Amino acid sequence: MKFLFEILNIPSVSGDESTLSEFILQYIHQRKNDWNVVPEIYHGEDFHDCILLKFGNPRTAVFAHMDTIGFMARYQNQLVSIGGPELTEDVELVGEDSLGKIACRLKGDEENSYHDFPRKIEPGTRLSFKQDVRVDEEFIQAAYLDNRLGVYSAIEICETIRDGWVVFSTYEEHGGGSMPFLLKFIQDKAPIKQALISDITWVTEGVSFHEGVVISIRDKFIPRKKFVDKIIALAEESQIPYQLEVEASGGSDGREVQFSPYAIDWCFIGAAEENVHSPNEKVSLADLDAMVKLYAYLMDKL
Amino acid sequence: MKFLFEILNIPSVSGDESTLSEFILQYIHQRKNDWNVVPEIYHGEDFHDCILLKFGNPRTAVFAHMDTIGFMARYQNQLVSIGGPELTEDVELVGEDSLGKIACRLKGDEENSYHDFPRKIEPGTRLSFKQDVRVDEEFIQAAYLDNRLGVYSAIEICETIRDGWVVFSTYEEHGGGSMPFLLKFIQDKAPIKQALISDITWVTEGVSFHEGVVISIRDKFIPRKKFVDKIIALAEESQIPYQLEVEASGGSDGREVQFSPYAIDWCFIGAAEENVHSPNEKVSLADLDAMVKLYAYLMDKL
Amino acid sequence: MKFLFEILNIPSVSGDESTLSEFILQYIHQRKNDWNVVPEIYHGEDFHDCILLKFGNPRTAVFAHMDTIGFMARYQNQLVSIGGPELTEDVELVGEDSLGKIACRLKGDEENSYHDFPRKIEPGTRLSFKQDVRVDEEFIQAAYLDNRLGVYSAIEICETIRDGWVVFSTYEEHGGGSMPFLLKFIQDKAPIKQALISDITWVTEGVSFHEGVVISIRDKFIPRKKFVDKIIALAEESQIPYQLEVEASGGSDGREVQFSPYAIDWCFIGAAEENVHSPNEKVSLADLDAMVKLYAYLMDKL
Repeated sequence: MKFLFEILNIPSVSGDESTLSEFILQYIHQRKNDWNVVPEIYHGEDFHDCILLKFGNPRTAVFAHMDTIGFMARYQNQLVSIGGPELTEDVELVGEDSLGKIACRLKGDEENSYHDFPRKIEPGTRLSFKQDVRVDEEFIQAAYLDNRLGVYSAIEICETIRDGWVVFSTYEEHGGGSMPFLLKFIQDKAPIKQALISDITWVTEGVSFHEGVVISIRDKFIPRKKFVDKIIALAEESQIPYQLEVEASGGSDGREVQFSPYAIDWCFIGAAEENVHSPNEKVSLADLDAMVKLYAYLMDKL
Repeated sequence: MKFLFEILNIPSVSGDESTLSEFILQYIHQRKNDWNVVPEIYHGEDFHDCILLKFGNPRTAVFAHMDTIGFMARYQNQLVSIGGPELTEDVELVGEDSLGKIACRLKGDEENSYHDFPRKIEPGTRLSFKQDVRVDEEFIQAAYLDNRLGVYSAIEICETIRDGWVVFSTYEEHGGGSMPFLLKFIQDKAPIKQALISDITWVTEGVSFHEGVVISIRDKFIPRKKFVDKIIALAEESQIPYQLEVEASGGSDGREVQFSPYAIDWCFIGAAEENVHSPNEKVSLADLDAMVKLYAYLMDKL
Repeated sequence: MKFLFEILNIPSVSGDESTLSEFILQYIHQRKNDWNVVPEIYHGEDFHDCILLKFGNPRTAVFAHMDTIGFMARYQNQLVSIGGPELTEDVELVGEDSLGKIACRLKGDEENSYHDFPRKIEPGTRLSFKQDVRVDEEFIQAAYLDNRLGVYSAIEICETIRDGWVVFSTYEEHGGGSMPFLLKFIQDKAPIKQALISDITWVTEGVSFHEGVVISIRDKFIPRKKFVDKIIALAEESQIPYQLEVEASGGSDGREVQFSPYAIDWCFIGAAEENVHSPNEKVSLADLDAMVKLYAYLMDKL
């Protein structure tokens, strides 16, 4: 899990994913020759900061977004949210502008957020939660588990996958926008009919820690029943622990698969967390393990 | 109207349209040799559960969505809405899960909907209003008139149409998502510049029963004036009864034509109903007749 | 600025841009032979009422929307908003239906807007603010500065541009919808990687009159940091006065570039106004001058 600890410490607020993208790319280059299949790698300015890996003859793509929620400095000491960060008074924020490193605290509320840094922060500067990774026998707790765990799971798949796309996307937390060009590239290069969204969901009254990876039957949007049924049947067959989610809200890169001009089925599969979009996101290690295993199984069988 | 009665009795909640789609397809195969022109038929997994019929050399496409609003079982006895069903305490719901047929009543309100079925319903199971079709000399009243009447009208067009696409879409009630790939397929195969949305609208202070089919000048979205003017001029010329709608809200598959990457004009044309998204949707038979006639006229003249 | 005064006097409410489009096209034909480079011109029914000018070998496109906010007559004396017009009791509205010219006053509020015209206005008729252009040494004040100034600035660029697309779009004020097909046409014909949105923004606590053209780091949506940084560096180098904007809300044609299936960077650049979407929109002439100059500089250097 060295890779996971490293990516947990690289800030990557929506719209500014280049550092994390570079790191993941470097890791891919180091590891790829040890993988079952050496992928074709697509990245660079033509893909903004996204990375696409093509293994063999793809039938399915896995999408993991690299960005996180955060804040942007406005005028004076004001902050504007990026994505939907939890707004907790006095939480520690970090960032950097042309004058140097920034460490400050969040003040105010949803109507009026600001920081207590002694000097003005340059407008447009991104801040994010100070990282503090905590691991015990049962749980990992940190900022950005959403979606560093999805990225980690996607990289783990690369070890064994024979056929499929593994894709690292950007901007997901703030409205999306990289999925449309990623999907167009995929459908032009080696088209797929199935997409899995490797992301983190919520612990709710129907979704608990240690009960397995979550297969989402719906969030705000609804994937096609036929495909979800197929996933659930495979999960059952795999004997890997899983649980089902039925929620009225929430969204993911799946939304953009749904609205793309391609008939691609999609399903969200990922571990559940507590303390969503806070510095204390908490995930069961057993659920994370089930997530990695179910992805490996599905990419083989789907 | 045997076809209409039959499709009114097939549940088809958004995301689970396969049974209705199969039925419509079967009907098409039975009837097509009696139609003026025998269409090319596109359907199957590459089109999810949608059906496209290509007649002659299309200039215009008609879109009718096959899905309806409904409910999905959540955890315990909770229900989550699909689309925007009217929430009336004690209304009867039906469905089926792996344990068998379900008949229950809706309880609670928008904040907290649940059912009174004596056992747990499997999460993800779709429920919809119990059907009760009532017809007298003036009106038809039933669940799902939105959009079974649009589907019926689209099938009626097939009798006489010489050139055009007739398309049965999915998911419309819950955010859409099939239109983008349907439009891409159409534009690649036999492109069009005009789209008509065969769907059901609302009786309002400006739209009344028995006043004719509604041509919508706008709902939440606004089609191009030039095209709507052309439709109205043809409706006037046809002497078929019509009325004009100008609303601030509401949406249809037209929205997705508007936002598609093609310069396709669109207009919503359909009969108006009372008791929208309830088991008691009510439409004037005269308005339905005008709807069928105006579509036949427009597909010839546009 | 004769061109500006002329376009300020042509109504062009979203969905009904044909008259303004014709006027701009005529102006282009009159002027094009005096421009540095004579562009290829694309327009007509295949582009609805949009106009695209292709100069040389484009790397960047400039988009200016031609439409304005306004009102649509509903039933009886009711009005429905198009886009988000400021609703000020008694403001003067003008329009025309088949019975003749209309001049009336706005009554009511957001819940219930209506007009005081002595006769019924035909449903679907568009009304807009009565124009009253006021210019002094510092300011221009009028209805529709948003986005007639963006159109004016885009036409000014045509004088000197060597390589690039200059595009006049429609419907922007009411949800958009022309950008997807414009972008598809551009990417098929002479693809670009950069887009600038020539539009008008808001004076806020961080954006003031006479401080230069505004480069927007974000509104509701967030362009990629790498590209905005590049724009700011060029603006700095140009010595043309500019200011930076960081807002949580507002949108532009940039949104549709973000969600397009192309990896195109975008940035909103335009002068700021007071009295947004009212008959009294007010812009600093110095800021407008900076806007025109920065566009000329960027189209050369980007």
